[in-house]
Amino acid sequence: MTQELANPVLDRLFAAIDARRTADPSDSYTARLLGRGTGKCAQKLGEEAVETVIAAVANDPEAVVAESADLLYHLLVVWAATGVRPADVYAELARREGVSGIAEKAARRQS
Amino acid sequence: MTQELANPVLDRLFAAIDARRTADPSDSYTARLLGRGTGKCAQKLGEEAVETVIAAVANDPEAVVAESADLLYHLLVVWAATGVRPADVYAELARREGVSGIAEKAARRQS
Amino acid sequence: MTQELANPVLDRLFAAIDARRTADPSDSYTARLLGRGTGKCAQKLGEEAVETVIAAVANDPEAVVAESADLLYHLLVVWAATGVRPADVYAELARREGVSGIAEKAARRQS
Amino acid sequence: MTQELANPVLDRLFAAIDARRTADPSDSYTARLLGRGTGKCAQKLGEEAVETVIAAVANDPEAVVAESADLLYHLLVVWAATGVRPADVYAELARREGVSGIAEKAARRQS
Repeated sequence: MTQELANPVLDRLFAAIDARRTADPSDSYTARLLGRGTGKCAQKLGEEAVETVIAAVANDPEAVVAESADLLYHLLVVWAATGVRPADVYAELARREGVSGIAEKAARRQS
Repeated sequence: MTQELANPVLDRLFAAIDARRTADPSDSYTARLLGRGTGKCAQKLGEEAVETVIAAVANDPEAVVAESADLLYHLLVVWAATGVRPADVYAELARREGVSGIAEKAARRQS
Repeated sequence: MTQELANPVLDRLFAAIDARRTADPSDSYTARLLGRGTGKCAQKLGEEAVETVIAAVANDPEAVVAESADLLYHLLVVWAATGVRPADVYAELARREGVSGIAEKAARRQS
Repeated sequence: MTQELANPVLDRLFAAIDARRTADPSDSYTARLLGRGTGKCAQKLGEEAVETVIAAVANDPEAVVAESADLLYHLLVVWAATGVRPADVYAELARREGVSGIAEKAARRQS
């Protein structure tokens, strides 16, 4: 990952999650969750997404902030469980940004 | 948001999404989605979360990357729809990081 | 609901759930769940759906049976929480069955 | 499945879905969906669950009825895709009904 793409908070959070793979499960929720396997990590991601959806539909910004933090944490746990690095996802977003920029320009030219 | 918390890719993506609020819906998927209301934005977030869960359970890292990019995009759309700023979520994650650090230290002291 | 549409198991389950609205929460999980409001009932429905999705993707029929039972129970709790009767949903399914039958015939005629 | 457990609408719907396994995909949405594999069937189930959750949180009984019909249809498609029979799920619900009845009686005796 280039420095340009770094997000200190998300990257520190991912580094902390990834370091817990080998931690004592009795010390760490993350270690326990990773120890239960990818299916359980994915299940928690799905549950937090449901809570974020409900917070959004209830139009409750404070709940959206809290549930989004839970969702991002569990998304990063899924990345750690499946061997995905944050830089892989940032690169995919940057790639689409380029494609989308070109598509937007094309759309403007047509109109 | 302090510079320290910035994520160039996510922040540029959020800025692009937020700018589309007033764009012509015929030019922009984001403008169309925001125009359909928070419920529709939340529904898309839920759908992308389901796809990320399935990619994780299938243990397919490339699919996890692609679906995570979709999930993050739609999460940022939900933030734009509900008036949440990325800095609000980063601050919540940083706050928990502090709490979690203290909890981890306490756990280590006990053991 | 006409007798023709009755499902003894689902209908008994719904009657039991609906009767718990006024039960003592300390005696009944259903009474506690209904007491926490429609949002919490909907959240549990979403969580059970995630578990059913994971069981299906894992291609585990026994887990699909167990999670489907959980999903149906929580769907019926959502019906009780929102004032929906099983007969309303059966009638909607029967209505679509008629429409779908006509659509299938039209499709066959075209081919 | 004993006659006692039959639900004419759900059972006719499941029989129709199960019969589409071998139908021409160009004639039938169900045949196309089953042809795309269990993962795609599970994804649609997850999406319909999200829509049911949103309808419930919006406290819109008519939408809960419509989305519940979609959810049940896609649940039955998942059953067909994973080799589960409706009777398996009804039996699991009936088994829990017995257990739950005993638990409720025990709870009443204690209080």
